[in-house]
Amino acid sequence: MVVKWKAKVYMKENMTRKAFAEYWLNTHAPLVKKMPGVRKYIINLVLSTYGEEPGYQGTAELWFDTLEAMQLAVETPEGQRAVADTQNFMRTFTSMVLEEHVVI
Amino acid sequence: MVVKWKAKVYMKENMTRKAFAEYWLNTHAPLVKKMPGVRKYIINLVLSTYGEEPGYQGTAELWFDTLEAMQLAVETPEGQRAVADTQNFMRTFTSMVLEEHVVI
Repeated sequence: MVVKWKAKVYMKENMTRKAFAEYWLNTHAPLVKKMPGVRKYIINLVLSTYGEEPGYQGTAELWFDTLEAMQLAVETPEGQRAVADTQNFMRTFTSMVLEEHVVI
Repeated sequence: MVVKWKAKVYMKENMTRKAFAEYWLNTHAPLVKKMPGVRKYIINLVLSTYGEEPGYQGTAELWFDTLEAMQLAVETPEGQRAVADTQNFMRTFTSMVLEEHVVI
Protein backbone atom coordinates (compact mmCIF):
# COMPACT_ATOMS: atom_id res chain seq x y z
CA MET A 1 0.00 0.00 0.00
CA VAL A 2 1.20 3.47 -0.83
CA VAL A 3 1.10 5.79 2.17
CA LYS A 4 0.17 9.41 1.63
CA TRP A 5 1.07 11.82 4.41
CA LYS A 6 -0.85 15.06 4.32
CA ALA A 7 -0.17 18.19 6.38
CA LYS A 8 -2.09 21.43 6.80
CA VAL A 9 0.37 24.27 7.03
CA TYR A 10 -0.32 27.41 9.06
CA MET A 11 1.82 30.33 7.93
CA LYS A 12 4.13 32.01 10.44
CA GLU A 13 2.86 35.31 11.84
CA ASN A 14 4.08 38.53 10.21
CA MET A 15 4.77 36.84 6.90
CA THR A 16 3.24 37.78 3.57
CA ARG A 17 1.63 35.08 1.42
CA LYS A 18 4.29 35.77 -1.19
CA ALA A 19 7.21 35.32 1.21
CA PHE A 20 5.55 32.20 2.61
CA ALA A 21 5.16 30.65 -0.85
CA GLU A 22 8.67 31.60 -1.92
CA TYR A 23 10.33 30.22 1.20
CA TRP A 24 8.40 26.98 0.97
CA LEU A 25 9.02 26.42 -2.75
CA ASN A 26 12.62 27.63 -2.95
CA THR A 27 14.17 26.86 0.44
CA HIS A 28 12.12 24.22 2.23
CA ALA A 29 11.17 22.04 -0.75
CA PRO A 30 14.83 21.30 -1.67
CA LEU A 31 15.39 20.01 1.89
CA VAL A 32 12.39 17.69 1.62
CA LYS A 33 13.63 16.47 -1.76
CA LYS A 34 16.79 15.23 -0.03
CA MET A 35 14.86 12.99 2.38
CA PRO A 36 15.31 9.32 1.48
CA GLY A 37 12.17 7.37 0.61
CA VAL A 38 9.99 10.29 -0.50
CA ARG A 39 8.36 9.04 -3.71
CA LYS A 40 6.36 12.13 -4.50
CA TYR A 41 5.98 15.58 -2.95
CA ILE A 42 3.30 18.16 -3.74
CA ILE A 43 2.81 21.64 -2.29
CA ASN A 44 -0.67 23.16 -2.51
CA LEU A 45 -1.23 26.87 -1.91
CA VAL A 46 -4.79 27.79 -0.90
CA LEU A 47 -6.37 30.22 -3.39
CA SER A 48 -10.00 30.28 -2.22
CA THR A 49 -12.36 28.35 0.03
CA TYR A 50 -16.06 27.46 0.01
CA GLY A 51 -18.05 26.60 3.12
CA GLU A 52 -15.12 26.77 5.45
CA GLU A 53 -12.52 29.12 6.87
CA PRO A 54 -9.59 26.76 7.05
CA GLY A 55 -7.09 29.06 8.73
CA TYR A 56 -4.22 27.33 6.97
CA GLN A 57 -2.54 28.68 3.88
CA GLY A 58 -1.27 25.51 2.28
CA THR A 59 -1.06 21.75 2.38
CA ALA A 60 1.81 19.36 1.80
CA GLU A 61 1.51 15.83 0.41
CA LEU A 62 4.28 13.25 0.70
CA TRP A 63 4.10 9.73 -0.66
CA PHE A 64 6.02 6.76 0.82
CA ASP A 65 6.07 3.05 0.01
CA THR A 66 5.11 2.02 3.54
CA LEU A 67 4.44 3.44 7.01
CA GLU A 68 7.89 2.21 8.06
CA ALA A 69 9.57 4.07 5.19
CA MET A 70 7.74 7.21 6.30
CA GLN A 71 8.96 6.90 9.88
CA LEU A 72 12.54 6.12 8.79
CA ALA A 73 12.65 9.11 6.45
CA VAL A 74 11.84 11.50 9.29
CA GLU A 75 14.56 9.99 11.50
CA THR A 76 17.39 10.49 8.98
CA PRO A 77 19.63 13.60 9.25
CA GLU A 78 17.97 14.90 6.07
CA GLY A 79 14.55 14.35 7.63
CA GLN A 80 15.54 16.11 10.84
CA ARG A 81 16.91 19.05 8.85
CA ALA A 82 13.65 19.39 6.92
CA VAL A 83 11.59 19.15 10.13
CA ALA A 84 13.72 21.82 11.85
CA ASP A 85 13.34 24.11 8.85
CA THR A 86 9.54 24.13 9.11
CA GLN A 87 9.89 26.65 11.96
CA ASN A 88 11.19 29.23 9.48
CA PHE A 89 7.84 29.59 7.70
CA MET A 90 5.23 27.57 9.61
CA ARG A 91 3.49 28.61 12.79
CA THR A 92 2.33 25.03 13.17
CA PHE A 93 0.97 22.11 11.18
CA THR A 94 -1.41 19.19 11.62
CA SER A 95 -1.27 15.98 9.63
CA MET A 96 -3.00 12.79 8.66
CA VAL A 97 -2.25 9.52 6.90
CA LEU A 98 -4.46 8.68 3.96
CA GLU A 99 -5.30 5.70 1.81
CA GLU A 100 -5.25 6.93 -1.76
CA HIS A 101 -7.44 5.68 -4.61
CA VAL A 102 -6.62 7.06 -8.04
CA VAL A 103 -9.87 7.02 -10.05
CA ILE A 104 -8.69 8.91 -13.13
CA MET B 1 -2.61 27.01 -14.72
CA VAL B 2 -3.96 23.71 -13.57
CA VAL B 3 -6.80 24.09 -11.09
CA LYS B 4 -7.12 21.59 -8.29
CA TRP B 5 -10.46 21.45 -6.54
CA LYS B 6 -10.36 19.82 -3.13
CA ALA B 7 -13.33 18.79 -1.00
CA LYS B 8 -13.59 17.51 2.55
CA VAL B 9 -16.29 14.88 2.68
CA TYR B 10 -18.40 14.27 5.81
CA MET B 11 -19.95 10.81 5.83
CA LYS B 12 -23.73 10.49 6.03
CA GLU B 13 -25.08 9.58 9.46
CA ASN B 14 -25.82 5.91 10.17
CA MET B 15 -23.35 4.69 7.59
CA THR B 16 -20.38 2.43 8.27
CA ARG B 17 -16.95 3.45 7.05
CA LYS B 18 -16.98 0.39 4.82
CA ALA B 19 -20.33 1.22 3.19
CA PHE B 20 -19.18 4.83 2.78
CA ALA B 21 -15.97 3.80 1.02
CA GLU B 22 -17.72 1.25 -1.17
CA TYR B 23 -20.45 3.62 -2.29
CA TRP B 24 -17.96 6.36 -3.08
CA LEU B 25 -15.53 4.12 -4.97
CA ASN B 26 -18.03 1.94 -6.81
CA THR B 27 -21.11 4.10 -7.39
CA HIS B 28 -20.17 7.77 -7.09
CA ALA B 29 -16.72 7.65 -8.71
CA PRO B 30 -18.07 6.31 -12.05
CA LEU B 31 -20.45 9.30 -12.21
CA VAL B 32 -17.61 11.75 -11.63
CA LYS B 33 -15.56 9.99 -14.31
CA LYS B 34 -18.28 10.87 -16.83
CA MET B 35 -18.01 14.61 -16.17
CA PRO B 36 -16.35 16.40 -19.09
CA GLY B 37 -13.11 18.24 -18.36
CA VAL B 38 -12.02 16.27 -15.30
CA ARG B 39 -8.33 15.61 -15.93
CA LYS B 40 -7.63 13.66 -12.79
CA TYR B 41 -9.69 12.44 -9.82
CA ILE B 42 -8.41 11.07 -6.54
CA ILE B 43 -10.35 9.81 -3.54
CA ASN B 44 -8.58 9.82 -0.17
CA LEU B 45 -9.99 7.87 2.77
CA VAL B 46 -8.83 9.10 6.19
CA LEU B 47 -6.97 6.37 8.09
CA SER B 48 -5.57 8.31 11.04
CA THR B 49 -4.93 11.89 12.14
CA TYR B 50 -2.31 13.72 14.20
CA GLY B 51 -2.97 17.00 16.00
CA GLU B 52 -6.49 17.38 14.73
CA GLU B 53 -9.90 15.81 14.83
CA PRO B 54 -11.02 16.54 11.31
CA GLY B 55 -14.56 15.24 11.52
CA TYR B 56 -14.49 14.30 7.86
CA GLN B 57 -13.86 10.79 6.60
CA GLY B 58 -12.38 11.49 3.19
CA THR B 59 -11.26 14.06 0.68
CA ALA B 60 -11.79 14.33 -3.06
CA GLU B 61 -9.38 15.96 -5.51
CA LEU B 62 -10.37 16.95 -9.02
CA TRP B 63 -8.05 18.56 -11.57
CA PHE B 64 -9.24 20.87 -14.35
CA ASP B 65 -7.40 22.89 -17.01
CA THR B 66 -8.92 26.20 -15.91
CA LEU B 67 -11.43 27.71 -13.46
CA GLU B 68 -13.87 28.05 -16.38
CA ALA B 69 -13.56 24.35 -17.24
CA MET B 70 -14.32 23.55 -13.61
CA GLN B 71 -17.48 25.65 -13.59
CA LEU B 72 -18.65 24.27 -16.95
CA ALA B 73 -18.14 20.67 -15.82
CA VAL B 74 -20.49 21.13 -12.88
CA GLU B 75 -23.18 22.65 -15.10
CA THR B 76 -23.34 19.72 -17.54
CA PRO B 77 -25.99 16.98 -17.09
CA GLU B 78 -23.20 14.61 -16.02
CA GLY B 79 -22.00 17.16 -13.47
CA GLN B 80 -25.50 17.68 -12.11
CA ARG B 81 -25.96 13.92 -11.79
CA ALA B 82 -22.73 13.58 -9.84
CA VAL B 83 -23.63 16.51 -7.58
CA ALA B 84 -27.09 15.06 -6.86
CA ASP B 85 -25.55 11.68 -6.02
CA THR B 86 -23.39 13.16 -3.24
CA GLN B 87 -26.48 13.14 -1.02
CA ASN B 88 -26.44 9.34 -1.02
CA PHE B 89 -23.26 9.11 1.02
CA MET B 90 -22.27 12.60 2.16
CA ARG B 91 -23.80 14.57 5.01
CA THR B 92 -22.06 17.65 3.65
CA PHE B 93 -18.80 18.84 2.15
CA THR B 94 -16.60 21.92 2.09
CA SER B 95 -14.14 22.79 -0.63
CA MET B 96 -11.23 24.92 -1.73
CA VAL B 97 -9.33 25.75 -4.88
CA LEU B 98 -5.60 25.16 -4.78
CA GLU B 99 -2.53 26.10 -6.78
CA GLU B 100 -0.55 22.91 -7.12
CA HIS B 101 3.25 22.69 -7.25
CA VAL B 102 4.66 19.25 -7.99
CA VAL B 103 8.12 19.15 -6.33
CA ILE B 104 8.88 15.44 -6.86
